[in-house]
Amino acid sequence: MKMHTYLEFSVIVNDFIKQHLFENIQATPEELFLPIEYTMDLGGKRVRPLLALIICEMFGGNIDDAIYPAMGLEVFHNFTLLHDDIMDNAPIRRGKETVYKKWNANIAILSGDAMLSLAYHHLINTKNEYIKPILERFNIMSIAVCKGQQYYMNFEQMEEVSIEQYMEMIYFKTAALIAGAAEIGAITGGASKQNSEHIAKYAKNIGLAFQLQDDWLDVYGNEQNFGKVLGGDIACNKKTFLYLKALEITKKEDEKDFDTLKKYFSSTDFNPKVKFDTVKNIFSKHKINEITAAKITQLLEEAQNELNAVDVPQENKKQLIVLTEKLVGRNN
Amino acid sequence: MKMHTYLEFSVIVNDFIKQHLFENIQATPEELFLPIEYTMDLGGKRVRPLLALIICEMFGGNIDDAIYPAMGLEVFHNFTLLHDDIMDNAPIRRGKETVYKKWNANIAILSGDAMLSLAYHHLINTKNEYIKPILERFNIMSIAVCKGQQYYMNFEQMEEVSIEQYMEMIYFKTAALIAGAAEIGAITGGASKQNSEHIAKYAKNIGLAFQLQDDWLDVYGNEQNFGKVLGGDIACNKKTFLYLKALEITKKEDEKDFDTLKKYFSSTDFNPKVKFDTVKNIFSKHKINEITAAKITQLLEEAQNELNAVDVPQENKKQLIVLTEKLVGRNN
Repeated sequence: MKMHTYLEFSVIVNDFIKQHLFENIQATPEELFLPIEYTMDLGGKRVRPLLALIICEMFGGNIDDAIYPAMGLEVFHNFTLLHDDIMDNAPIRRGKETVYKKWNANIAILSGDAMLSLAYHHLINTKNEYIKPILERFNIMSIAVCKGQQYYMNFEQMEEVSIEQYMEMIYFKTAALIAGAAEIGAITGGASKQNSEHIAKYAKNIGLAFQLQDDWLDVYGNEQNFGKVLGGDIACNKKTFLYLKALEITKKEDEKDFDTLKKYFSSTDFNPKVKFDTVKNIFSKHKINEITAAKITQLLEEAQNELNAVDVPQENKKQLIVLTEKLVGRNN
Repeated sequence: MKMHTYLEFSVIVNDFIKQHLFENIQATPEELFLPIEYTMDLGGKRVRPLLALIICEMFGGNIDDAIYPAMGLEVFHNFTLLHDDIMDNAPIRRGKETVYKKWNANIAILSGDAMLSLAYHHLINTKNEYIKPILERFNIMSIAVCKGQQYYMNFEQMEEVSIEQYMEMIYFKTAALIAGAAEIGAITGGASKQNSEHIAKYAKNIGLAFQLQDDWLDVYGNEQNFGKVLGGDIACNKKTFLYLKALEITKKEDEKDFDTLKKYFSSTDFNPKVKFDTVKNIFSKHKINEITAAKITQLLEEAQNELNAVDVPQENKKQLIVLTEKLVGRNN
């Protein structure tokens, strides 16, 4: 069987979403459906549907069985962004106004709700035998993503957050969906239980590494490649892996730096450049750069071990490795 | 087979929800799950799950196959209330603070999102062969309910709303879910396609009648039985069937009354008692009471015709008739 390339998969996903997003739905009134189209049009790498399709084919499946569920995953992901933006008070996403800002909060709540059901509408459009396993996986995952957002909001109010708590939060908020997408790919590819478990763990570790890399890029990234202004997390006192790790270390080893970090992260009134430089200096002094990079490497190695354990020909894994490189590669 | 009574069904549903609401879910953090429990504990008649169970048994099904989907329907209904209360800015429901008021809007958005997935979690807990038909029905219905809420919000901004538009809105917002619950009952009862269609139309008409009755009770009800203060809809300028019908008639026949209605419904600053009495007088003068009652009767007759066409022994229909009487009976 001729397998698709990463680029072909990417074209397939984007075209499919354009053509089939509202299939079998009467998309009126427009107040409800325009925000959905708008959100889906904001773009993004379509990581989750790509993961599902690539993994489906990796296991010898027919991507026709995975394409609607894959679209469902992307709709779900965009639903979470839409609602998160209300909760996080975020006016801009990917350079454009968010739905609650462009329309209003009520429109954003309701069109998000409709998106979640739209995701389910597409998820069940596959072979009968796949529907139950897909949904069993998806429902738990979907509730996990809500848990992640709740922990994320809780952390804003908490004085102390451990690295362990942080890793649990990003598992729920980010990695669970990546793992879920991989498992849905495995289900539609007819993978064995053992292979499914390995690929889910692979994706989970990739998801965790991806989030840590995102934290890292905010401080040590290249603005041009990163696509965002550096220091955004620091400016808004976000409790990232880097910040929490720095607190953990300085609490034991450097009271002065600990107090400085605490002070700067207690307000958004500081000069952003002074704040960024001060915090970055403290990070560098305590090797937060290297510690974070090492943690990412460790997660990627764990991922690699899981992928090695997946029992399919090595060449079948090629496109998955391409996708992973794009997600957590060196050049981000 | 011994069939359950309405009272037995009611006990079964309430006990089941108490015991199984978070089955197979790790219900932490509490910020996410307490609001769900709180919402489900607010009570209500549990009409939708009762409808599903009663109809399942009416068709000779085993209610064990319907009980989880029935709970899913109730979770879904309560999810819509939770999110609607944010959008409608409603601080009180069933005499208690709504979730967004008791906690905050973010908690209400997110716990609502989790509830929608929790609904799906329960919906698929039935015989394999029922899962796909249940979800096909449910997904379209769930999106319909969002449409209804959007039309409802749109109506607040619109100068003119026709009776036809109003009936379409309440179909989406209220009757679609009642019909969906009935169909899910029919699916789990193993009903024929024809019987399913009849029972869905039956439930749709009951749902429409229920909403019109709710509109009617706000003006002509008995406060003690209604459980709410009369005139609430009028006080907040809600475009009910009665108001829209009165506008339709007075526009042609009584310019002065038309202008008075328009004036009173343009602000919430009028003395509530004067406003209620004035509006009610105009309603009575133009026979809005009788017209609405006649429309309800017509819908109930259409429902009855559909129920008559359902091909099961008459005695099997008994509990459904009890439920319907409770929903749209004379004594409400």
